[in-house]
Amino acid sequence: MAVVHAGTATATRSCTFVGSATGDWTVTSMRTLAGEPLPAAGCVSLHPDGALPDRNASWRLRGLSSHERYVTREEKERLAARQPALGRAQATCAALIPLRKSAAWWALAQDERRRVLEDRSAHIATGLRYLPAVARRLYHCRDLGEHQPFDFLTWFEFAPADTPAFDRLLAALRASEEWTYVERDVEIRLTRSDAVMPFAEGY
Amino acid sequence: MAVVHAGTATATRSCTFVGSATGDWTVTSMRTLAGEPLPAAGCVSLHPDGALPDRNASWRLRGLSSHERYVTREEKERLAARQPALGRAQATCAALIPLRKSAAWWALAQDERRRVLEDRSAHIATGLRYLPAVARRLYHCRDLGEHQPFDFLTWFEFAPADTPAFDRLLAALRASEEWTYVERDVEIRLTRSDAVMPFAEGY
Repeated sequence: MAVVHAGTATATRSCTFVGSATGDWTVTSMRTLAGEPLPAAGCVSLHPDGALPDRNASWRLRGLSSHERYVTREEKERLAARQPALGRAQATCAALIPLRKSAAWWALAQDERRRVLEDRSAHIATGLRYLPAVARRLYHCRDLGEHQPFDFLTWFEFAPADTPAFDRLLAALRASEEWTYVERDVEIRLTRSDAVMPFAEGY
Repeated sequence: MAVVHAGTATATRSCTFVGSATGDWTVTSMRTLAGEPLPAAGCVSLHPDGALPDRNASWRLRGLSSHERYVTREEKERLAARQPALGRAQATCAALIPLRKSAAWWALAQDERRRVLEDRSAHIATGLRYLPAVARRLYHCRDLGEHQPFDFLTWFEFAPADTPAFDRLLAALRASEEWTYVERDVEIRLTRSDAVMPFAEGY
């Protein structure tokens, strides 16, 4: 089964994450931190628009990568200089974190959201500290249609040795003022299926 | 035929504008200022998701209203205090202006887009000067999917006597630095179909 590397994952803006019994990434844990859980799934695969598999899915979550909503020119350049591509051979660990923020968040003005997100929660600065270890791609879903289950789908890739660093990144973000506006937060940890040791073989 | 008043137009975030032979709003002119034109249509009607008519359409343009991307708290409150609802009985004139901005616009950082949009183009301040005469609702379409024909659909409603003011509003925006980033701009002027004088009756 083909692993979705940077070529397919970045050539298109759209991505549908499909949770099902088979797929390019194997689920190692699913944890619900806020709101409704997602149904269990053994694997996750990523598909651009128009290339969805027919197979039975436990869930499908669609998002689109888009322009940045908060970063300044200076931050954008610091990010661009440090952020790695998706699909690095050593990055066999991943996480998919679907999030929904509250109506109170979306009712804030742009300057208020920026103040909470960066001035008081250091979201961008925190992410920068974990570059280039953790590759990240943000997909937006709030404006795909009415009543979306999530506002964002964030996809992270990192090497197994960087798992403790990734844990610290998540802990820092979740301790921030920004996270008081998060009303649904599901964390799905994954290992690339072709990197899973075939323990069962030979038995 | 039911006119789409504020009740239906504002209860949902989604709106598909359908250009066809019949509809709640009658086209009085269509003008292409930049990029590809839209096919001609005699009328336009507005429909929320899930309520699209089966009839033949010349074109369908879908958008979603969303949170504001640039306004500060102070601007948001000044807008809220002055902006009228859609569907006012006297507002029998309307305009639908689908726009697409260039890749250069979307590659700007948030602070750069804000500086062009307001500090140097006074987009928000200009709009405020025409309140409460001109009611306005912005629909986003850039993040509905890949390769959308437009980034935004803006819908305006005003009384016939405010047409010269509306013309000045458009002229001011189009003369701004922000408009150097507009690569497709189609202007559709409309009159509410139930307000069109039935000249043909009795002949």
